[in-house]
Amino acid sequence: MMINAVVIGAGSWGTTVAHVLAHNVPTTVWAREPDVAGEIRDKHTNSRYLAGYDLHPDLRATADIAEAVSHADVLVMGVPSHGFRSTLEQAAEHLRPWVPVVSLAKGLEQGTNKRMTEVINEVVPGHPFGVLTGPNLAKEILGGGAAATVLAMSDATVGARLQEVFATDLFRVYTNDDVVGCELAGALKNVMAIASGMADGLGTGDNTRAAVITRGLAELSRLGMAMGGDPFTFAGLAGMGDLVATCVSRQSRNRHVGEELGKGRTIEQVIEDMHMVAEGVKTVSVVRELSIQYGVEMPIAEEVYRVINEGQSAAEAYRGLLGRRQRREMHGIDGSE
Amino acid sequence: MMINAVVIGAGSWGTTVAHVLAHNVPTTVWAREPDVAGEIRDKHTNSRYLAGYDLHPDLRATADIAEAVSHADVLVMGVPSHGFRSTLEQAAEHLRPWVPVVSLAKGLEQGTNKRMTEVINEVVPGHPFGVLTGPNLAKEILGGGAAATVLAMSDATVGARLQEVFATDLFRVYTNDDVVGCELAGALKNVMAIASGMADGLGTGDNTRAAVITRGLAELSRLGMAMGGDPFTFAGLAGMGDLVATCVSRQSRNRHVGEELGKGRTIEQVIEDMHMVAEGVKTVSVVRELSIQYGVEMPIAEEVYRVINEGQSAAEAYRGLLGRRQRREMHGIDGSE
Repeated sequence: MMINAVVIGAGSWGTTVAHVLAHNVPTTVWAREPDVAGEIRDKHTNSRYLAGYDLHPDLRATADIAEAVSHADVLVMGVPSHGFRSTLEQAAEHLRPWVPVVSLAKGLEQGTNKRMTEVINEVVPGHPFGVLTGPNLAKEILGGGAAATVLAMSDATVGARLQEVFATDLFRVYTNDDVVGCELAGALKNVMAIASGMADGLGTGDNTRAAVITRGLAELSRLGMAMGGDPFTFAGLAGMGDLVATCVSRQSRNRHVGEELGKGRTIEQVIEDMHMVAEGVKTVSVVRELSIQYGVEMPIAEEVYRVINEGQSAAEAYRGLLGRRQRREMHGIDGSE
Repeated sequence: MMINAVVIGAGSWGTTVAHVLAHNVPTTVWAREPDVAGEIRDKHTNSRYLAGYDLHPDLRATADIAEAVSHADVLVMGVPSHGFRSTLEQAAEHLRPWVPVVSLAKGLEQGTNKRMTEVINEVVPGHPFGVLTGPNLAKEILGGGAAATVLAMSDATVGARLQEVFATDLFRVYTNDDVVGCELAGALKNVMAIASGMADGLGTGDNTRAAVITRGLAELSRLGMAMGGDPFTFAGLAGMGDLVATCVSRQSRNRHVGEELGKGRTIEQVIEDMHMVAEGVKTVSVVRELSIQYGVEMPIAEEVYRVINEGQSAAEAYRGLLGRRQRREMHGIDGSE
């Protein structure tokens, strides 16, 4: 079975996944901007998002969404959550029946509070769907480093075949049948990365960072499990793995946003200086609504929400967390009092 | 109830815990070397292990183990695993009945494969016992940073009282009733920190580090659960938290050992240059025996064992891990095939 892969979106991660796919199968990346498509096609580079890295020479690129999508045997959505639905709607009319749709986005839809695979199901019902997610910093992969990721598809047969399409010797793909958990883990960890970055910006050390990551994973696992995710997913590459990579890496945008907030800048100032999307900034509002809806206590996410949406300082947020009562570690988690 | 705390061992972590305790209760630290005891007593510093940091002025110190132990209402064992039993045997004859004994060690006893609280039970049976463990880099705590830790005692009433003895505004103590899991987590994470350091020394990036940490936690959780630990413990501060701090911190000795191995040095060369103990170097042999005894697959620990004990290079170890089959992420963990 010959598979044509099409990636929608030529940002840093979409382009990187397209580069990986091009090692295995004929691959096309769709870029909204014709100059980006032209550069990928002609020079095998994407200087806007991945300056200094060479892309696979066989990777094709186009700015014509009809041309790209009509040849797709797998559609990979490398678009951030806020543009996900509208872009998929553009693609939908060109998509052949039964073609699986894989989300790369790590956010939730504002307004509806939906996961991206829920959006896929609404826009192109009947297509197998899923998510590719894990500790995958784009530039390290383009630089030739090893990375491990998780592919969770609604259909296990499709998932097993796509595992071979995505995997290379250095890009290790593990399958998981928990689409909901994988997707939530990817979205929720960005909120915790902002918190971890805030602690960094305030000048705290590795002890605090480890505590924020650990308590952050407990928080996101609680909400994720309440929403139907599998606890093993949150303990795995899509949960803990991605959380750790995002919280420790200098390359993470969400951690960077937190660090700047920790240094005392406002969210408006921080966003103005970035030309890429930090999903956690918008997702934190959705997470807060979900935590109320599902009755899950999320003290770290709550403090991040206040800093981003209510003008609280990062220093106040940190003091708020330190002021909480010291009690049993697994209070509210393991079922006992 | 007035409690006199006594810490046995004036290495970096024993001294730091004594410094924290001195904020709350009368505290004495016992140093094997009289000059270390004298310096702590007279200058409130410990330049051999904690150069540049001031200790609490009320912290007492002595090199007379009988004097120290005979006044103890809680005995805190800040001695590495290889000297734990013999030092406790020296202390035992001076210890009053019912005095709780808390281990700070993060290793397992070579030869017997025992946990430190098992050693406590053998040397001073009848005493309440437990462990204090978590993501706690000593110098950050002395520098005034916040940290969270876990106290697991065999007796919950004793644990609740000791929580107040150890806790300060910045040193946050959570209780946990899983002594076995907390103790195993602290010991096993040092092996994984060596693996993470090896990857660093080989020049890999944050993606690989996050994958090693995540897969390493899965491994140590598998063995820890087989030995009676609670899965929640491994997902908490004593497990994941300590693992993350150790694997990312420049201050971790075990990570440092791994990094030097990753750069191609031999274990003999690395150890010769260190004047402190890296517990993971010896614990990995115990862990390997336990993994065979309990029938738990531990590919990362196995590769660390080969590098340390069989002269395999770190590069070969890394290739060995990358050569493993890509399959379901939770293969062998979640009970399904």
